[in-house]
Amino acid sequence: MTASRLYKEAALFTGIILLGSTAVHASEYTTMEEFAASADYAKFVVDNLWILISAFMVFIMHLGFASVESGMTQGKNVVNVIYKNIFILCSGILIYAVVGFQIMYPGDFNGFLGFGGLGIGFDASDPVAFLTPAYGEDMTIWSDYIFQAMFAATAATIVSGCVTGRIKISMFMVFGVLLLAFCYPVTGSWVWGGGWLDAMGFYDFAGSTLVHGVGGFAGLACIMLLGARKGKYENGEIKLIPGHNIPLATIGVFLLWFGWFGFNGGSVLSANPAEVSYVFVNTAIGASAGSLTAMLVTYVIIQKLDATMALNGVLAGLVGITAGADVLTPLTAAISGAVGGTIMVFGVMMLDKMKLDDPVGAVSVHGFAGIWGTLAVGIFVADVAFTTQLLGTLAVLGFTFVFSLIVFGAIKYTLGVRVTDEAENVGLDIAEHGISAYQNFNRIKGQSVPGTVEANPLK
Amino acid sequence: MTASRLYKEAALFTGIILLGSTAVHASEYTTMEEFAASADYAKFVVDNLWILISAFMVFIMHLGFASVESGMTQGKNVVNVIYKNIFILCSGILIYAVVGFQIMYPGDFNGFLGFGGLGIGFDASDPVAFLTPAYGEDMTIWSDYIFQAMFAATAATIVSGCVTGRIKISMFMVFGVLLLAFCYPVTGSWVWGGGWLDAMGFYDFAGSTLVHGVGGFAGLACIMLLGARKGKYENGEIKLIPGHNIPLATIGVFLLWFGWFGFNGGSVLSANPAEVSYVFVNTAIGASAGSLTAMLVTYVIIQKLDATMALNGVLAGLVGITAGADVLTPLTAAISGAVGGTIMVFGVMMLDKMKLDDPVGAVSVHGFAGIWGTLAVGIFVADVAFTTQLLGTLAVLGFTFVFSLIVFGAIKYTLGVRVTDEAENVGLDIAEHGISAYQNFNRIKGQSVPGTVEANPLK
Amino acid sequence: MTASRLYKEAALFTGIILLGSTAVHASEYTTMEEFAASADYAKFVVDNLWILISAFMVFIMHLGFASVESGMTQGKNVVNVIYKNIFILCSGILIYAVVGFQIMYPGDFNGFLGFGGLGIGFDASDPVAFLTPAYGEDMTIWSDYIFQAMFAATAATIVSGCVTGRIKISMFMVFGVLLLAFCYPVTGSWVWGGGWLDAMGFYDFAGSTLVHGVGGFAGLACIMLLGARKGKYENGEIKLIPGHNIPLATIGVFLLWFGWFGFNGGSVLSANPAEVSYVFVNTAIGASAGSLTAMLVTYVIIQKLDATMALNGVLAGLVGITAGADVLTPLTAAISGAVGGTIMVFGVMMLDKMKLDDPVGAVSVHGFAGIWGTLAVGIFVADVAFTTQLLGTLAVLGFTFVFSLIVFGAIKYTLGVRVTDEAENVGLDIAEHGISAYQNFNRIKGQSVPGTVEANPLK
Repeated sequence: MTASRLYKEAALFTGIILLGSTAVHASEYTTMEEFAASADYAKFVVDNLWILISAFMVFIMHLGFASVESGMTQGKNVVNVIYKNIFILCSGILIYAVVGFQIMYPGDFNGFLGFGGLGIGFDASDPVAFLTPAYGEDMTIWSDYIFQAMFAATAATIVSGCVTGRIKISMFMVFGVLLLAFCYPVTGSWVWGGGWLDAMGFYDFAGSTLVHGVGGFAGLACIMLLGARKGKYENGEIKLIPGHNIPLATIGVFLLWFGWFGFNGGSVLSANPAEVSYVFVNTAIGASAGSLTAMLVTYVIIQKLDATMALNGVLAGLVGITAGADVLTPLTAAISGAVGGTIMVFGVMMLDKMKLDDPVGAVSVHGFAGIWGTLAVGIFVADVAFTTQLLGTLAVLGFTFVFSLIVFGAIKYTLGVRVTDEAENVGLDIAEHGISAYQNFNRIKGQSVPGTVEANPLK
Repeated sequence: MTASRLYKEAALFTGIILLGSTAVHASEYTTMEEFAASADYAKFVVDNLWILISAFMVFIMHLGFASVESGMTQGKNVVNVIYKNIFILCSGILIYAVVGFQIMYPGDFNGFLGFGGLGIGFDASDPVAFLTPAYGEDMTIWSDYIFQAMFAATAATIVSGCVTGRIKISMFMVFGVLLLAFCYPVTGSWVWGGGWLDAMGFYDFAGSTLVHGVGGFAGLACIMLLGARKGKYENGEIKLIPGHNIPLATIGVFLLWFGWFGFNGGSVLSANPAEVSYVFVNTAIGASAGSLTAMLVTYVIIQKLDATMALNGVLAGLVGITAGADVLTPLTAAISGAVGGTIMVFGVMMLDKMKLDDPVGAVSVHGFAGIWGTLAVGIFVADVAFTTQLLGTLAVLGFTFVFSLIVFGAIKYTLGVRVTDEAENVGLDIAEHGISAYQNFNRIKGQSVPGTVEANPLK
Repeated sequence: MTASRLYKEAALFTGIILLGSTAVHASEYTTMEEFAASADYAKFVVDNLWILISAFMVFIMHLGFASVESGMTQGKNVVNVIYKNIFILCSGILIYAVVGFQIMYPGDFNGFLGFGGLGIGFDASDPVAFLTPAYGEDMTIWSDYIFQAMFAATAATIVSGCVTGRIKISMFMVFGVLLLAFCYPVTGSWVWGGGWLDAMGFYDFAGSTLVHGVGGFAGLACIMLLGARKGKYENGEIKLIPGHNIPLATIGVFLLWFGWFGFNGGSVLSANPAEVSYVFVNTAIGASAGSLTAMLVTYVIIQKLDATMALNGVLAGLVGITAGADVLTPLTAAISGAVGGTIMVFGVMMLDKMKLDDPVGAVSVHGFAGIWGTLAVGIFVADVAFTTQLLGTLAVLGFTFVFSLIVFGAIKYTLGVRVTDEAENVGLDIAEHGISAYQNFNRIKGQSVPGTVEANPLK
């Protein structure tokens, strides 16, 4: 079983550019001490360390998501955003330890649905099997788990951005937990767990589809069922509801980009110098091209130097090169990022035309650019078939979308998913949490102070 | 002397789980070149690098502390918080270089109080003794110093949160410097420096007691002497004084968690793959369990989805597993974190009942959860005696508490520790610094702008 | 050509303290597989990984710059600051890939101006030449590029801080791109590219002059041509225009310090334990001394506990030790940082007396402390000639200043560099971007809400 836990890695090394090497760890060890004294040990230490560093880089992306979502929404819904994000991150880590990791990496399985057992799967009676190259080429089982766990919560956090401002927080929690515990690891197992899509040659290096696409399309299903925020589409007009705090959103986007060096770089699953450095270059170039293109396209279309689009352009560029960060060239990475940024701009406008209210643009950034990024590998990389990329994207995102429609629909028509109009009007911070995100910032003499917490008008 | 500077490490390796190995570096080198050409060199490079990475991770926790404390206090005291935090961090680094490091790691000493000499202790005439495994198994003296220096300022920064909003900044500086220069390194030497508590088998992996407990109980002594903020406890009622900026507090908590991977992970004192990855898993699980439990307990008690408690729950969970991050199992780490989060919630309520005003909850988060975390090792880990854990916790925190009462009391009854009522009322930003943290955010036409800096009414 | 691409490294190892070693990688490999199986491989992996980690540390400094500049300026110009910073970072990465890298590291050249060719310079037909020690001792070409690219945008971002609040964003873009594409890499080639100043023995370890000085003096030229913000100097008085958000500026400064461990630490160009740990210690001590000294000097001069000066003191301390972070002792690092902090305080006051309006103090922090830091190496380090340091500083900063005067002057007298008085008055966020950085933070019942986006009064 352990041999295929790290199937993702095996898949990688059938990849297109293999500049480094991994064939060093052939020998087997009978004790931890024997391994530690071996010539292979130092390389294992640095490879494993890079996975751990990548894990905390992906961790900080969750602050990035919380900050982007907070900053781009209204000031009356900020505490709610933060509460949702902390809940999902903490739940994600625990759920992934209890069931998710062994659903996503079940070992030998039928390729569609498997389960390796409860827990992370470490057996203390045989440490060598789990803590040396006998487990993975380049990491311990603990490193494998923590790196993957940091990815897991991402998909549900993306949904949080889509539904912000009008969802009952309790129902978001229910949906998020189900997405995390079932949908994400199952579709993940099809590719990174060595399932049927992997067998067909589908390629998604770090998760344009498996992570970002899944989040984006789960979010799309939810906003279709949830409806738009009040006043967003009225009298045939689209009303701009601007984010309340652009510096906060900026902190979020930069932290996401920062963490993405671990998200993509760690997906090499070793510290292979040629591969990790190559992935870094493509990641930076894709993000830059995505943002500059989004700036340009927005300026051409609406003659505006739009900071929100510049910020989302960074993210769309990153999503656009995540599926192929190790196999694109710097030039095709620039193209993939630029197209990702462009798709995002048009996606945001299209959804508004369709009256699908996505307050932070997450469906466009993660969903639409995620599809593009996956297809781009089929277009730009000779050894990857476009049709397989298309099929895999449809399968994963179709499953996610239908799963989300069913689950979120079932919640909608039983428990209800939407807060009252009064609660939406007064804001979820007061309505759901009884507090405002901001209190009066300065003492102003002889003047009633705006921003003081009011009594909750709903109680 | 140098042999015992890294006593902390030696203590670790008598620990319970020793999955990796360290016995490789037995040989000695006569020149740096000889070492660099040896087969041991690569492992030393990566081990040392991990300590340095951990150092900058602990460094960024200081931004975490500054942000949490700023966000959870009133907007009129924010500049003051920031000034205090910068001062303590910078002082801490320098004081630790001049005296702290060699008080905490004095080499051979009587076990209660020692001093290795002024400065960091590097002798340029014998680089091999300080920059190869001849110094520490896995790091140079510089790495050892910088990693420990980043820890040192933490305790005083925790105090800063407790006393915020009414302390004279000059007196905080005096107290903080004395805490840093004497109390913290002396109690630290008892355990990590190889002193009497270490000899008894007391176990505190990364500082539930030695760092967080010390900060929390020094803070408790200070708030007992300082008194509550005006209006906090009036007419038998406890008035909620909410934090002015929840997103800022959120940034702080996420950065603290982020840095904690270095705080705990670096405390392995090498990049040993089995141990560091294990510590990462326990750290993430403890934090998650702490936050979810704090959310749940708060909801059950006061029917509120309280974001501040969710945030402090993360921190209490982290403090709760810090003493045993390398020896707990993921399951007992979850329990330790959950209990830490619960203790924090009740601690906050208890202190308010006792009219002890801790604006950010630091005594509960760091002090009470710190005791718990240390005792938890005695409960969950077979080879660690509960009574020793209890004794050690009492000794370290008792010494700290008495030290703080005496020193802060002496300042109180000579120079005075509290600002005037007028200064407290107008806020310490205007009163002590002559500036507000925030100026008018937007230009509003034809309207007087709230938030403009006033003339200091005290001058 | 590739041999001298990493000339910076070669220069380093003629440096004063060489505690570690690098002579290990003498042998050559014919295939990637042969190298990966060699005894040298593990050390190369960790050295290369440290450069990549340093690259993302320098990356996050760009969030630091954006936050400092945003926080220290008026709330009406924040979106503009953010837009400029994203543009410059993304442009910088792409421009450096297309031309900058091979201007700065042209290979064999005349020492004044060279160009290795378009693109990064990787030749896929000979991976061994670019991805093993055959390229650089300790990194691949991709790592070399990405680390240097993150530095490149810094200079232009420093200029952004100087000109904030009254520059036409389009003209800033034009100037920034020219600075990035020509001035920065050309002056860089003189030292790190192995040009004429390097040949003379000029020493600038991580860029006190080459990065910070260049940004500061380009900015000085720009503000001389651009003029002060309206109302800054009126009726012979200097009006304080305080930053609108001190916590945001604080986040920025801490992130800059955080990233500086990679900026300086990565400039060792390997993970050499003795050197990197030494650089870390000097970096922390320099920053601490800079801030404490700036606090003290400001208090002595104007009897104020000035948080902005404390924050800028950190940065000036860091700039002050950047040129000699590997060759100063901890004591001389403390002195260099302290003098840097002092120079910054007086620099800020002097520029105001000269009616040169530098809203964030960037000329003093980066320009003046940058000169000091470079000269300090000549003062404190026996093997470095003061006159050479002086000559090199004059050459690089003189070239930069004249280049900037000519280019920015040409723009000024053709296209114009300054926004209209109306636009400056209403703020660049509304005027240039049609949006405010902040929207109403809380819903206040029965009261008109300050901070709502107004219609753009200029259209």
